[in-house]
Amino acid sequence: MTNLDATFSALADPTRRAILARLCRGEATVMELAEPFAMTQPAVSRHLKVLEGAGLIERRVEGTRRPCRLASTGLTEIDEWLGMLRKALAANYDRLDLLLAAMEATDPAAANPVSPPPKADEPT
Amino acid sequence: MTNLDATFSALADPTRRAILARLCRGEATVMELAEPFAMTQPAVSRHLKVLEGAGLIERRVEGTRRPCRLASTGLTEIDEWLGMLRKALAANYDRLDLLLAAMEATDPAAANPVSPPPKADEPT
Repeated sequence: MTNLDATFSALADPTRRAILARLCRGEATVMELAEPFAMTQPAVSRHLKVLEGAGLIERRVEGTRRPCRLASTGLTEIDEWLGMLRKALAANYDRLDLLLAAMEATDPAAANPVSPPPKADEPT
Repeated sequence: MTNLDATFSALADPTRRAILARLCRGEATVMELAEPFAMTQPAVSRHLKVLEGAGLIERRVEGTRRPCRLASTGLTEIDEWLGMLRKALAANYDRLDLLLAAMEATDPAAANPVSPPPKADEPT
């Protein structure tokens, strides 16, 4: 599995997205994460392992605690890839704008088929 | 499956990402997509169905052709969700900056442990 496969796949699960949403508010331990999600600690640990492998979270050692927090690696990688889609879609809209502008230049009515009604004090 | 599940899951497959990368260069039919990927048309059709369900592509009818092109719905939805992660990660970096600034204010050596060597013409 490439990193992109792992990261997109990790994000495809609603529980894992909920864990990430919780970590947006600050770091948390497995125990702190298990409670609100009504999940066992081993189940949470499995999800955390997937998120860690995807570069979406990291864990640090603090005495006997191992709190998790958001990591930027995974997000940076998928954002780079998604950038290609964003650029292509923006280019499509730019082409549409150019097309509409060209239509308006040759035939104003074609680009704006619903013309406002003429004002009362203007000769029609 | 929510839309976020469907979109992230659609993006987790390398063949589907390759199809999207091809569509970034312009619209294409199933036949045009099957050739470079050395896949059968039914296999390509299955991938396109997943991408269409995820709001990542759309198809239009043009006589007997049904060319595919990129759609913005899926990307907009996941970008909105990813925005929450981006904001949280940026806030973490801001906190780190504040912490470093506070350290520097009370003890410049702590924030910048490697001091430059004193200049030759300066008294040490």
